[in-house]
Amino acid sequence: MKPVVPVVIALAVAGAFSAAVAAQTPADRAIKYRQSALSTMGFHFFGILAPMAKGDRPYDAQVAARSAKFVAELSEMPWHDGFPAGSETGAPTKAKPEIWKDKAKFEDLAKAMQAEAVKLGQVAGTDLATMRAQVQATAKACTNCHDQFRAR
Amino acid sequence: MKPVVPVVIALAVAGAFSAAVAAQTPADRAIKYRQSALSTMGFHFFGILAPMAKGDRPYDAQVAARSAKFVAELSEMPWHDGFPAGSETGAPTKAKPEIWKDKAKFEDLAKAMQAEAVKLGQVAGTDLATMRAQVQATAKACTNCHDQFRAR
Repeated sequence: MKPVVPVVIALAVAGAFSAAVAAQTPADRAIKYRQSALSTMGFHFFGILAPMAKGDRPYDAQVAARSAKFVAELSEMPWHDGFPAGSETGAPTKAKPEIWKDKAKFEDLAKAMQAEAVKLGQVAGTDLATMRAQVQATAKACTNCHDQFRAR
Repeated sequence: MKPVVPVVIALAVAGAFSAAVAAQTPADRAIKYRQSALSTMGFHFFGILAPMAKGDRPYDAQVAARSAKFVAELSEMPWHDGFPAGSETGAPTKAKPEIWKDKAKFEDLAKAMQAEAVKLGQVAGTDLATMRAQVQATAKACTNCHDQFRAR
């Protein structure tokens, strides 16, 4: 086994962030993680793609394709690490306790959203009408889960 | 042009998030976006991969590969939308004004980090020694930029 000292040094230098994160409880880390991942997704979906779909922002195929690619990638991230048992409470969260009572349903809705997001990533750069239809399908998939599992 | 009413309805239902985001200034939106994207990346890099590299957490090839894939994907996200002109100030930020004074240098360092992160995504599932070396290279690339462009 090689000495790990160089790794420790490199990581210590990079590590103000690391120390701040290590000070949090596991529940708070998970809560902040899922909020960060979903907020990053929301920036592209609600901040860029939805305004294009609604006509509040001009359609730009290149911008739409980039944001939709990011949405597709991000749609995979929150679930495995963001909702562990025990993260029902901790830092302020809108996640309802029902998530952990009906995890199978929650995961089905998450997978359904992910499937729509992946399609969005594939078609958003095609043209406005195609993107708009898939933005709508993805928004419905967001709502299907939020209605049941997210406090207003 | 098709009526956009269905899109508006779907998005309105999904839209508590949307309304909150729309109320922010463009600078605040960019600041929160870059912080969310980098924080999501940090969760996987400093919270999962670095502890494995340091021996603080057992190496698990599948977990390492998933986190490193996410890090690689996230490493592309902050730059284009997260650092627009005018986002030097607004919500609290550790981004130094030097970023906007030497954007070319900042972007070179961001690209160098991204290149290391993409390599990490490719090799993290191989074995511990390979992952450790690439975690170290990626950590150095984080630090190269933070030292110059991020307040402590």
